[in-house]
Amino acid sequence: MKQKLLVLIILFINISLFAQQRSRDLGIEIGVLPTGARNSITDVEGVKVGHTTLIEGDSIRTGVTAILPHDGNIFQKKVPAAVYVGNGFGKLAGSTQVEELGNIETPIILTNTLNVATAMDALIKYSLGLPGNEDVRSVNAIVGETNDGYLNDIRGQHVQTENVISAINSASSNVTEGNVGAGTGTICFGFKGGIGTSSRKLPESLGGYRIGVLVQTNFGGNLTIDGAPVGEEIGKFSFRDRILDSADGSCMIVVATDAPLNSRNLKRLAKRALLGLGRTGGIASNGSGDYVIAFSTAKENRIPYRIEKDLLEQKVVPNDLMSPIFMAAIEATEEAILNSLFMAEDMTGFQGRTIEALPMQKVKPILEKYKVID
Amino acid sequence: MKQKLLVLIILFINISLFAQQRSRDLGIEIGVLPTGARNSITDVEGVKVGHTTLIEGDSIRTGVTAILPHDGNIFQKKVPAAVYVGNGFGKLAGSTQVEELGNIETPIILTNTLNVATAMDALIKYSLGLPGNEDVRSVNAIVGETNDGYLNDIRGQHVQTENVISAINSASSNVTEGNVGAGTGTICFGFKGGIGTSSRKLPESLGGYRIGVLVQTNFGGNLTIDGAPVGEEIGKFSFRDRILDSADGSCMIVVATDAPLNSRNLKRLAKRALLGLGRTGGIASNGSGDYVIAFSTAKENRIPYRIEKDLLEQKVVPNDLMSPIFMAAIEATEEAILNSLFMAEDMTGFQGRTIEALPMQKVKPILEKYKVID
Amino acid sequence: MKQKLLVLIILFINISLFAQQRSRDLGIEIGVLPTGARNSITDVEGVKVGHTTLIEGDSIRTGVTAILPHDGNIFQKKVPAAVYVGNGFGKLAGSTQVEELGNIETPIILTNTLNVATAMDALIKYSLGLPGNEDVRSVNAIVGETNDGYLNDIRGQHVQTENVISAINSASSNVTEGNVGAGTGTICFGFKGGIGTSSRKLPESLGGYRIGVLVQTNFGGNLTIDGAPVGEEIGKFSFRDRILDSADGSCMIVVATDAPLNSRNLKRLAKRALLGLGRTGGIASNGSGDYVIAFSTAKENRIPYRIEKDLLEQKVVPNDLMSPIFMAAIEATEEAILNSLFMAEDMTGFQGRTIEALPMQKVKPILEKYKVID
Amino acid sequence: MKQKLLVLIILFINISLFAQQRSRDLGIEIGVLPTGARNSITDVEGVKVGHTTLIEGDSIRTGVTAILPHDGNIFQKKVPAAVYVGNGFGKLAGSTQVEELGNIETPIILTNTLNVATAMDALIKYSLGLPGNEDVRSVNAIVGETNDGYLNDIRGQHVQTENVISAINSASSNVTEGNVGAGTGTICFGFKGGIGTSSRKLPESLGGYRIGVLVQTNFGGNLTIDGAPVGEEIGKFSFRDRILDSADGSCMIVVATDAPLNSRNLKRLAKRALLGLGRTGGIASNGSGDYVIAFSTAKENRIPYRIEKDLLEQKVVPNDLMSPIFMAAIEATEEAILNSLFMAEDMTGFQGRTIEALPMQKVKPILEKYKVID
Repeated sequence: MKQKLLVLIILFINISLFAQQRSRDLGIEIGVLPTGARNSITDVEGVKVGHTTLIEGDSIRTGVTAILPHDGNIFQKKVPAAVYVGNGFGKLAGSTQVEELGNIETPIILTNTLNVATAMDALIKYSLGLPGNEDVRSVNAIVGETNDGYLNDIRGQHVQTENVISAINSASSNVTEGNVGAGTGTICFGFKGGIGTSSRKLPESLGGYRIGVLVQTNFGGNLTIDGAPVGEEIGKFSFRDRILDSADGSCMIVVATDAPLNSRNLKRLAKRALLGLGRTGGIASNGSGDYVIAFSTAKENRIPYRIEKDLLEQKVVPNDLMSPIFMAAIEATEEAILNSLFMAEDMTGFQGRTIEALPMQKVKPILEKYKVID
Repeated sequence: MKQKLLVLIILFINISLFAQQRSRDLGIEIGVLPTGARNSITDVEGVKVGHTTLIEGDSIRTGVTAILPHDGNIFQKKVPAAVYVGNGFGKLAGSTQVEELGNIETPIILTNTLNVATAMDALIKYSLGLPGNEDVRSVNAIVGETNDGYLNDIRGQHVQTENVISAINSASSNVTEGNVGAGTGTICFGFKGGIGTSSRKLPESLGGYRIGVLVQTNFGGNLTIDGAPVGEEIGKFSFRDRILDSADGSCMIVVATDAPLNSRNLKRLAKRALLGLGRTGGIASNGSGDYVIAFSTAKENRIPYRIEKDLLEQKVVPNDLMSPIFMAAIEATEEAILNSLFMAEDMTGFQGRTIEALPMQKVKPILEKYKVID
Repeated sequence: MKQKLLVLIILFINISLFAQQRSRDLGIEIGVLPTGARNSITDVEGVKVGHTTLIEGDSIRTGVTAILPHDGNIFQKKVPAAVYVGNGFGKLAGSTQVEELGNIETPIILTNTLNVATAMDALIKYSLGLPGNEDVRSVNAIVGETNDGYLNDIRGQHVQTENVISAINSASSNVTEGNVGAGTGTICFGFKGGIGTSSRKLPESLGGYRIGVLVQTNFGGNLTIDGAPVGEEIGKFSFRDRILDSADGSCMIVVATDAPLNSRNLKRLAKRALLGLGRTGGIASNGSGDYVIAFSTAKENRIPYRIEKDLLEQKVVPNDLMSPIFMAAIEATEEAILNSLFMAEDMTGFQGRTIEALPMQKVKPILEKYKVID
Repeated sequence: MKQKLLVLIILFINISLFAQQRSRDLGIEIGVLPTGARNSITDVEGVKVGHTTLIEGDSIRTGVTAILPHDGNIFQKKVPAAVYVGNGFGKLAGSTQVEELGNIETPIILTNTLNVATAMDALIKYSLGLPGNEDVRSVNAIVGETNDGYLNDIRGQHVQTENVISAINSASSNVTEGNVGAGTGTICFGFKGGIGTSSRKLPESLGGYRIGVLVQTNFGGNLTIDGAPVGEEIGKFSFRDRILDSADGSCMIVVATDAPLNSRNLKRLAKRALLGLGRTGGIASNGSGDYVIAFSTAKENRIPYRIEKDLLEQKVVPNDLMSPIFMAAIEATEEAILNSLFMAEDMTGFQGRTIEALPMQKVKPILEKYKVID
């Protein structure tokens, strides 16, 4: 009897050792600013995230992730927004209108490269169909993508309109990470990537704002975890590891904040997220379409579809108070990317290819060696 | 006998008075540079244009226009290209990758605002299906649009995948203008707009290059025809005429040249096209998504999908020799816009609305008064 | 008695024929919107303009023009602003900070190409020396230029610090045009260019705002005066006329408005000015550094150097109400350019070179022929 | 006798312990790619660097650094170049022309914020005076800056024309780092910053190119040395340390390569340098004007001032082979920033203020703890 009990306990320990944990639960503390309550993009009030995960048969490993800036009709109450193109080798839909008008009017959809059109069309149909939008004849759909064609039969274009709608409809403040939604088939630093999220809450003296980040990770480089050179220690980094180099790459980053920022300062904020990517060892390789979409949820600055007054009254954070918001975005991006890795699991897909999750039994000792964790 | 002859002559005169003619056939000579042989974007060797025109029932007045940079597999032999965003209130697909990589890899499709996704998806399927593209997993579809929602039931999204494919497949060097393809339901300066084209051929001393422009006109302002203030004389201009003001606007401009230009100078060239739009009285109003896509067909500078050598060898026009090419693009854009107006015909469409073509019986005397024509 | 009277009348006619007149005084009416009271950039309340004109000996034909957004300490009360680079072959100082922060903090100085540094340094010294700026350690000087090296001994760099300061100190709401300030030695369409200004006042129903433009003209192309092809009629246009082609070109355009615009919409406004340049026949040739600086004087949106509150409260014109403001900028730019030509006079300068003013005895009949004037 | 000798030896050891060493000499190995022979920007053949260091009296702590792309007349043989604006709160001179024309035509000068005009003017005079430039009437001076106003009496504008010229004339392939030239009075992460350099040499299989970086460091954030959280361990990071927060910031980064890149890929390369800055803990704070200037020295692609042929023949690296070059720039930027810190020394300056160099006695144990060094 005693012996059996012992075995069970050991098994339990083994499982807990290898089950996916968020980076912070492992003891990794990125940066110096405190996280929000959920350490998630949904710490920004009103923001919701939904996934449709498509794992079917041997070849379909893809999906859709929807980020909703607020609960209402986004077309009728647009939010200030900006897009920063870190590396434009990608198919982001909607960027020029965001740049020109300074706002977004649909949920943000992430999916795979060859289903951007599907998601655009779904967003258009969704927007046309909302109560109050009966006379709408123009919709600027925001769709980002990364290429999951190593694990997914991407040429099959398996995402359907209803998959996009269901991601929107299932959105909640509870964000699942790892092999879900648009991250189902992605690869990051040669390991299984996916969806990750994180947030920061500034001290009241610095504005008290919340900054949340969600990433879809599918890029390469030289993996660094809170400073520890994991890629080098494991021997898996760009221009050394073939699988890593053959990955088409890309990283989509969504930054949400309740700080009342205008589109100009949102663009500056978006730019900072790339510094967080750099800290994980990302190199924005030629084939990596790295985009950041940033938006502000501050209610006082929403832009009505129909002009109500001749002047919009806005309250915005002055340039001089932006720096802590920038730092928060950098930290949250770094941590969101790590979460996408730590929460992903091994995946076998298209043509029998397998990508393993970050091998914790190898990574933990490295993190310990480099004092990232005790 | 004599009487019958007289009648026939009168009929002939009537027809010639009211049949659509290109602006130059009416005696309007825009600028100082000579046109190409066809006065068309297809004067640039290898460029082809195809239309699918959808005029069905009372409400469908839309279509697709395809511009092919060359006869071959464009994905395998990309052409140097650039996008200039005159006013980004539009849904142009593909712009960030063009900016990043300096080339385009698909035909250019123009259509209506709410069918951009349809056209993107069609371009992806078209590209995936071409012989030699069996391993392609990423396609940067280039799709422009204007909003034909006044004459067309745009919310019905009536363009189908096959309409896009047929526009590509029907492309030839013979370009139809006016109410065709993506110009079927468009409105320009309060009159019926549509597709127009024009070209210039530089003297050999200035390089001998051909510069061709194709436009999809759907914008407003204060119509000026070769300097004559037609909008004012007719009493139809922005902030005076309601139909004109209610139009959502936009102008898509495609500039092709056989001059061997790199993407940087193509972007500069694209920018010049807006000066031609300005000369017609266009004001790039808030709602007018005005984009220019420019590409070079020079064979020596095509970019292979698969790297063949470690270095690309290119021959490019130096900055100092760009000015005449710029002037050609300005002139050809102005004339292409006029051709879109002169070649359009009255159109009745969605909800019984009618937009009349440029009323030649009123316009001709104005052009004569202002000495544009004799 | 009768004979003497006759002589006097004839003299009067001669004088009126040849004295410089603004385009509108000649009967040229550009566009459809009404001008402001002075038809000048200074119709925008608080804006002032000053010149220092340097005509010395045989070779010095240059100067400085200063545009002040308001009467106060601009560094302490910055104004929302934007820069649009029409063609970047120029030396505009200060553009990246305007783009990043969305404001300007000094007067705008225009001068010649090789004295931009002089003007920058003068603006820095001026700003450091203002009461209240004792702790200032960073000044973003805004200096534009065109190249007057055909008529001026530009390599001599004849502008001095005190010339810049005196232009600022002499600024008033009364703007002199033609061969003054930074326009002293410039050439436009092969004729003498210079400084020109114009304005529009929107009807109350369109916002009632004032939009004023000042230009320093030094560019080429194919001169069109309110639609009349003057360049062609005279036989002087780019790629035909050698003096015109050898001119290095450039046009600096400053747009001021009392409309409360944020920097994003100011950038859009700045872009529209180029359409006005296009309407005069400008082609933005390779060597023409064409820049537009736009700013808003609306008092409620000024940005204090020292943060007074955690949030800036701003009232801004919504996107949807921008179009008439755009149209006003296009019209005022076209007219300001014409004014710079009509108000300039013959100039002989460096190495005995002479550039004649627009020859009114030739131009008037052309304008009459084309019904621009009666 | 023997005892004295012993004492001298001990002193020598002490000095060598505390004397400035480059990061690599301390055992810090940034990244995975090998360095060039000198681990300096001058590993790119032909590139030279010169400094003028101004340390005078109690208050002058500033200087000039000149980077020469090649030995010849740069105006006559321009080099392909690009500017990336990481954060535009700075006064970089020359950026719009580089963007428009894709090249630079002068040495690159770095100095302090309020002496940019001085350096511009010196570069103009230098260029006008070069043999062969007798007819030059337009010079696009490239001048970057950071604000050394904490340690330097910056309002005194102490840099003179001759200081700029002497920096150019003293340029050599031997680059001094730390408190020299434009880095004399700068502050980085709250410690003494300055000039730093580093390089990478790609393996032949990846092109064999050299990529060199030089930085002028004057920014803040949260110092990370090869992953070790030095800022946190020492308790000196943004929003915690007042001196650090009060620093105006900025980082100028110059990237040179012998890879034959066109201006588009040079801009992409420039963008990557910011990722290296991010890895050191830089946050691109609001007040930090962070700019990257990248140029290619490849002889076959130099652009003659006077057109020699109607077409430029160029050989350029295709997009698909850019990634290792990107990685090299990231690594070299990170290491150059560290070198600027490690090579700097304590500095006392303006108003008796002192900024200490990175305190090696504290830093070394941290680097050991985090296994950065043994």
